[in-house]
Amino acid sequence: MDVVELTRALIACNSVTPARGAVFDVLEAALVPLGFSIDRFVSGEAPDGPVENLIAVRDRGGTHLAFAGHVDVVPAGEGWSASPWGGTVRDGAVIGRGAVDMKGAVAAFVAACADVPEHGTLSLLITGDEEGPATYGTPALIDRMAATGVRPNLCLVGEPTCVSRIGDTVKIGRRGSVNIWVEVAGRQGHVAYPHLADNPVTRLVAILAEVDALVLDRGNAWFQPSNIEATDLHVGNPAHNVIPGRASARLSIRFNDEQRGDDLIALIRSVAHRHAPDAVVTGRVSGEAFLTEPGRLSALVSGAIHDRTGIVPELSTTGGTSDARFLSRLCPTVEFGLVNATMHQVDEAASTGDLRLLTDIYAGIVSRALA
Amino acid sequence: MDVVELTRALIACNSVTPARGAVFDVLEAALVPLGFSIDRFVSGEAPDGPVENLIAVRDRGGTHLAFAGHVDVVPAGEGWSASPWGGTVRDGAVIGRGAVDMKGAVAAFVAACADVPEHGTLSLLITGDEEGPATYGTPALIDRMAATGVRPNLCLVGEPTCVSRIGDTVKIGRRGSVNIWVEVAGRQGHVAYPHLADNPVTRLVAILAEVDALVLDRGNAWFQPSNIEATDLHVGNPAHNVIPGRASARLSIRFNDEQRGDDLIALIRSVAHRHAPDAVVTGRVSGEAFLTEPGRLSALVSGAIHDRTGIVPELSTTGGTSDARFLSRLCPTVEFGLVNATMHQVDEAASTGDLRLLTDIYAGIVSRALA
Ligand SMILES: [Zn+2]
Ligand SMILES: [Zn+2]
Repeated sequence: MDVVELTRALIACNSVTPARGAVFDVLEAALVPLGFSIDRFVSGEAPDGPVENLIAVRDRGGTHLAFAGHVDVVPAGEGWSASPWGGTVRDGAVIGRGAVDMKGAVAAFVAACADVPEHGTLSLLITGDEEGPATYGTPALIDRMAATGVRPNLCLVGEPTCVSRIGDTVKIGRRGSVNIWVEVAGRQGHVAYPHLADNPVTRLVAILAEVDALVLDRGNAWFQPSNIEATDLHVGNPAHNVIPGRASARLSIRFNDEQRGDDLIALIRSVAHRHAPDAVVTGRVSGEAFLTEPGRLSALVSGAIHDRTGIVPELSTTGGTSDARFLSRLCPTVEFGLVNATMHQVDEAASTGDLRLLTDIYAGIVSRALA
Repeated sequence: MDVVELTRALIACNSVTPARGAVFDVLEAALVPLGFSIDRFVSGEAPDGPVENLIAVRDRGGTHLAFAGHVDVVPAGEGWSASPWGGTVRDGAVIGRGAVDMKGAVAAFVAACADVPEHGTLSLLITGDEEGPATYGTPALIDRMAATGVRPNLCLVGEPTCVSRIGDTVKIGRRGSVNIWVEVAGRQGHVAYPHLADNPVTRLVAILAEVDALVLDRGNAWFQPSNIEATDLHVGNPAHNVIPGRASARLSIRFNDEQRGDDLIALIRSVAHRHAPDAVVTGRVSGEAFLTEPGRLSALVSGAIHDRTGIVPELSTTGGTSDARFLSRLCPTVEFGLVNATMHQVDEAASTGDLRLLTDIYAGIVSRALA
């Protein structure tokens, strides 16, 4: 089982999100000889589906470590120096869409499974929709696990977490993210007769000034303070002497594990209604915050990394959302994978040395977790 | 000298702003037989010129009353039921662009001059650019008056001031008007890394919140309090997860005679610079406030109105800017003219009864002023 060859075989299956079929065939063919039983299923309808997902389990009792990841990829885009679906090896690196995010890490975990003693239980939870809306991705996997009795004790997500070199960063949590739209209607009128009008800009400014003064929290040992940014304002009134009829703003909140997305929407709505009782406030939660406090899992991951590299990884909660937000509800969850420098970019590439080193570290994590 | 026929003759000269030539020929031909000496001159270059202006003086010593007005008009637009340049008389009204604003009032003053005893000094200060930028309009007239020694003691501006019927409103002042643009530059960045960015929306909101809290003045006996309205906001950032690089707002201030436009621009700039030292604040003063406090001039105008109509006019300072803002620097100035209901509209029309009544009132004003 060669990690580089498996990475290349996975890249060769164009699997722009949402993914089904061939890329899962390749994965299944690699896992079956290692003693895994495979459960593949397709969920959902257009436009967010259908999506294929795969649960592979090698049940030998004892502690159950799950590896979670995805085989869908973002579109290739233009300007590659080698085919994005070719898996070319050049200058010691495998080039292709998904090399880093995250077919390389999936291949590394499969290769690690071939290298470790068969005691304890291993599973792979692989979705075909992490890069898309994810409606039928990891949430569907979790439903399926509940229905079929797959219950991991520890979870490792293979997203590309490293910044400069393999081992520098393990993610133990992520901030949550919510976008909120505030729309204020007033009454249009002439600036010479303000008593006949109701300026929505005045109300919106009062709302935003109060929002700017909010202190959501002070942060904590593992997270920065939650933060609100106004990212857009709009009135669109070309007439200098007219008080406009509508004004709107968009907010983006990145929040830690002391907040919940829906509570933040409700908070902004209550501020808005103090200044504009008819304001329309809508929100979309991209992801809740999650945290797996440093403990057994992060210690054994850090230990395996230090064994192979001499590096003590940083335990980080920065960056955007990931599927770890869903999995962390099941059991302690951390994320560790390749260097993320080229993810989602043209000429995405993973060095073959990194792929082999990641395989070694994953094997170390499995050995420690299931010892 | 018939006011209706002179109004029709002036309307027949298409004089969309800036005006020159024929419309002034008609006016000159009406004034010369009444003993006026005429000074016509053309000022300015494109795009704001050339503009023709006319100063007519009948100098008999004593008090000097000036009548100020314009013979340019706004464009006709579409949808008239009679030619805008035809001067049609229908249902007792003269229809045409400028009938109300303000060829009718110019004709009424000329007709009044034919009816009054020749003692005291009368002048007409007539511009061809009141409806346009006015760069070479009344300011050029005032320069010319200084150069040629035309020095009125009292000034009557013939703008259409009445709301429902002739005599209901005399304007003794107008609020000033200034538009101010506030442009805040920040540093664009990702919402997940706010410490690397500088959100200009935050700064702009702080500026606008402080501006909203400003109390410029409390108003006074003749004016409402000065008032600031934010009339536009702009960011234009489509990316939900990006802190934008720029944010801007536009303010409109209508202000009374306790303020000056440039001071207000400086005030807003100082507020802006407290929150955003690099903010760019630009302003354009459309007109300063003016007030001729009630006294001899308003009393004699009100008296002449009451004599002919039984109405005690309201002394008002409402509405937009007018050329009275320039003339009021020379001497006490009030405004009185036709009913403004149809000004600048399709089928602009002045009733022949109103034209004759206005002529009578103007004659009464002249008689009282020069008695
Ligand atoms: Zn990924
Ligand atoms: Zn006018």
